[in-house]
Amino acid sequence: MPTGRNRHNRSSTRRPDAGYGRPMELRPERGEPRAAPDRRARVGARVAGHALVPAGDNERLLAHEAQVKEAFDRIEPFLRRLSALQHEADFTDRAQAMARAELGFELPRRILDNAWIQQLDIRHLYAWCVFETYRAYADDFYRHQPLAPDPAEADRFQAWLQECGFHTVDVSPCSDGRLAHVIRYVLRLPHGLVRRKSFAGANFDVETSLRRWVETELSRYREGAPNTADAPTRYLKIAVYHFSSGEPATQGCAAHGSDTAVAAAAARDRLRDFQEAIENSFCCGASIDLLLVGLDTDTDAIRVHPPDAEGEPDPARYVESEALFDRTQGLGAEAVRERVGEEVAAVAGGSEPGMQRFVAGLLENNFAQIAYVRANHGGRYGDIGHNERFMGVGMGFEEVQLRNLTYFAYLQTVEEGAPDLDVGVKIFSGLNVERGLPVPVVLRFDYHGQVPGARERAEARTRRVAEALRGRFPRLAEQGLLHTLLAVRDCARNGTLEVIGSSLEPTGETH
Amino acid sequence: MPTGRNRHNRSSTRRPDAGYGRPMELRPERGEPRAAPDRRARVGARVAGHALVPAGDNERLLAHEAQVKEAFDRIEPFLRRLSALQHEADFTDRAQAMARAELGFELPRRILDNAWIQQLDIRHLYAWCVFETYRAYADDFYRHQPLAPDPAEADRFQAWLQECGFHTVDVSPCSDGRLAHVIRYVLRLPHGLVRRKSFAGANFDVETSLRRWVETELSRYREGAPNTADAPTRYLKIAVYHFSSGEPATQGCAAHGSDTAVAAAAARDRLRDFQEAIENSFCCGASIDLLLVGLDTDTDAIRVHPPDAEGEPDPARYVESEALFDRTQGLGAEAVRERVGEEVAAVAGGSEPGMQRFVAGLLENNFAQIAYVRANHGGRYGDIGHNERFMGVGMGFEEVQLRNLTYFAYLQTVEEGAPDLDVGVKIFSGLNVERGLPVPVVLRFDYHGQVPGARERAEARTRRVAEALRGRFPRLAEQGLLHTLLAVRDCARNGTLEVIGSSLEPTGETH
Repeated sequence: MPTGRNRHNRSSTRRPDAGYGRPMELRPERGEPRAAPDRRARVGARVAGHALVPAGDNERLLAHEAQVKEAFDRIEPFLRRLSALQHEADFTDRAQAMARAELGFELPRRILDNAWIQQLDIRHLYAWCVFETYRAYADDFYRHQPLAPDPAEADRFQAWLQECGFHTVDVSPCSDGRLAHVIRYVLRLPHGLVRRKSFAGANFDVETSLRRWVETELSRYREGAPNTADAPTRYLKIAVYHFSSGEPATQGCAAHGSDTAVAAAAARDRLRDFQEAIENSFCCGASIDLLLVGLDTDTDAIRVHPPDAEGEPDPARYVESEALFDRTQGLGAEAVRERVGEEVAAVAGGSEPGMQRFVAGLLENNFAQIAYVRANHGGRYGDIGHNERFMGVGMGFEEVQLRNLTYFAYLQTVEEGAPDLDVGVKIFSGLNVERGLPVPVVLRFDYHGQVPGARERAEARTRRVAEALRGRFPRLAEQGLLHTLLAVRDCARNGTLEVIGSSLEPTGETH
Repeated sequence: MPTGRNRHNRSSTRRPDAGYGRPMELRPERGEPRAAPDRRARVGARVAGHALVPAGDNERLLAHEAQVKEAFDRIEPFLRRLSALQHEADFTDRAQAMARAELGFELPRRILDNAWIQQLDIRHLYAWCVFETYRAYADDFYRHQPLAPDPAEADRFQAWLQECGFHTVDVSPCSDGRLAHVIRYVLRLPHGLVRRKSFAGANFDVETSLRRWVETELSRYREGAPNTADAPTRYLKIAVYHFSSGEPATQGCAAHGSDTAVAAAAARDRLRDFQEAIENSFCCGASIDLLLVGLDTDTDAIRVHPPDAEGEPDPARYVESEALFDRTQGLGAEAVRERVGEEVAAVAGGSEPGMQRFVAGLLENNFAQIAYVRANHGGRYGDIGHNERFMGVGMGFEEVQLRNLTYFAYLQTVEEGAPDLDVGVKIFSGLNVERGLPVPVVLRFDYHGQVPGARERAEARTRRVAEALRGRFPRLAEQGLLHTLLAVRDCARNGTLEVIGSSLEPTGETH
């Protein structure tokens, strides 16, 4: 690997060999920031002594994380106080005034009015508040794009990617909520330009991935996007498994019994299956490149497993970002990059130079996240276990780029997605149901608005899955311990969220 | 349209403008033909006086239809006789001997042995016999390819198609069993070269069709198959609706309330949606051609609606094959072709010459089927209503090219396919359940054997759908009134059927 090159040239003239290692510069939020009164853990977003960590990006990411999570985390204390007031005079008006002031929205009046007859229906109010908070968050995300890169930065990323020899990056992490931020935070990649579909245990669906590959390649042939088909670039598939360095035996990947070796091997096997599927289904040397990445969910540090000369990812060989971060602290930017390049070359000597460059870029990007966790979470998250705020079921959820916000179940039907759903409901049984709070489920299907009938079909699918979900968890649903918000979104026109219903409606409240 | 050309030149030198109007020559069956002792309705397979009807093809199609349907139709009379013998001495051995001799397979011994304790379990035996008959039929089909065209004929078809301006034909008929023979019999097209997916009311899925188009186009770019992407040919999507000329108000399409105009308009709308989806999703002039076809399920005569100059199919404008057949009877082949060309030009003057040629080819092909129905079924089927022998659920069923043999429910999950399943179960309630016989369901998913894990996933899907099917019709399943045969097939390697289980197994019989 050549040393001494300026991979992070900040001048506007992009050098052909310029890397992408520098975390993205984000444009400032354009909307009015929502109040975030109790912003916690604001212990200095800058880590002294690491040349590759730009404080600006970390500040911006922290603002987003704090704003969104604090909005969700206000709900429980608020309802606890509300519960104490439920038998007071003027309860309804008082509650609404409090809700407006503290949460930013009103509560369903009928539930408040009926509190004197039966106990205040806290389950209903909890689901209502989670859904209203989610709605405001998603609206804000699509309207103001708080995490979007500058257009110039997006171009820079595409150019860097192609210099590394790739035209598309498709990432399949585990659906565990502790990986929900893997694209924009952990790897500092532009979420709009990198594909993400999460599956329990990173066991992504080979047939679905095959279809995405076919779509991508046709677009290169027909439309020259993201580049023309004659460019010698490849489709890169990344699988992200995870583990817990602090409590490896209990806080690792549930789908693989918290066994890191099993999780890594399973992700490697699935990657190979996908590659083999393409090689066997298409002639003329069709193939893809593979990359295996491990995430320590306690610290957000990563292990990158560069493929060998045959393109095979090896669970036993990897470069660890945290050790590299520590060894390069205090060095100048050039020296850090040189050192990273050397370490990658030492482990990945046989792999393509472009792949090595990409791996180095991921490691350097991750430095910013290591600094972020050290600065804002004492180097190790307080919630190293599950702490998701809602389940995200369906297709879409581009707005969810935050750790432990959402447990994903990407699916088209409950029939196929039942195993991932069961894991999610189990997680929320521990988090919520055991305390008597419901599992809040956002059911959502994105559609391509330019396809006739696509919106209607997305709506029908959302309602069908809602029905099937009730059918799978009938006791929870009957007891008000499973609530669903139904939404669709035109992803082709980058629309905002359209809420089409919720399980709270039969009480007479329309959402 | 040029007149006087020899569209049916039988010489081996294919002229560039040679049509495909001549129904396919099939190679003779290579296996031992199964006994078909009571071959009915053999009233002369040749119709005097029509120049475009080759007796050879009709003889072969009749042999296949008679052999398969008679095998299914032997089951009920056989079981009726068996029932009468159930209390006789040596019943088991006698029954097995009869079954071997008359049906070609044995019965589950335990059911026979237990007949003295409880009544002979006719429901179980009925499902067993249907499944064994289906298995033998499917095996025979894939081993001996009784309907396959000669390789030279297949090339001729592809060449003709491309001369008409198309590289792929994708047909979506209604899933009604009375259309199950539409490809190979009604339209006399090679079933292996033409795509078919059936949906209730011909309401095919736009997103799935879009994926097939993408796959086809990528294959043209990457592999030059079926032709290279620079050839100015198009993807042709055909929707086939249906009606009953004899009992239009009751024996039309159930999904459209037996209203022919509604059925035709719905198929036209779905075609347009698909075309618009492609035009809006892909740039650079991407589009497809559309063709609307109506089938009279009483007579197998067709109406072809040629598109207008803008490519729009019009439900109100069509050419009817039966009237043309009658008007051209007694004429020489050249004169018939000329006449057909004129009639098509009169209705479809504005459409592309290639489309007109294709429409004329379909009409001429259908003449053979009109002759077939007249010769073998008195011009109008005895079973103008439903008379399916089993339900085919899943993906595959290339072997089913016979009228009223199978009600199709093409689906990936019961959750999505429930409406088509409900229609099927309703049909079989009338045919079987009301008399106490079960609904026999063949559950089947074809897979691409070259994709790693595809077989295992197909097997898992088959078992999952079987479970979901029981969940949807629990009472029928508990009463032994719904039985399923589970099978998968490697369609990429053109494999035979692999039976992986059946609902008859819990009784102790392994299938």
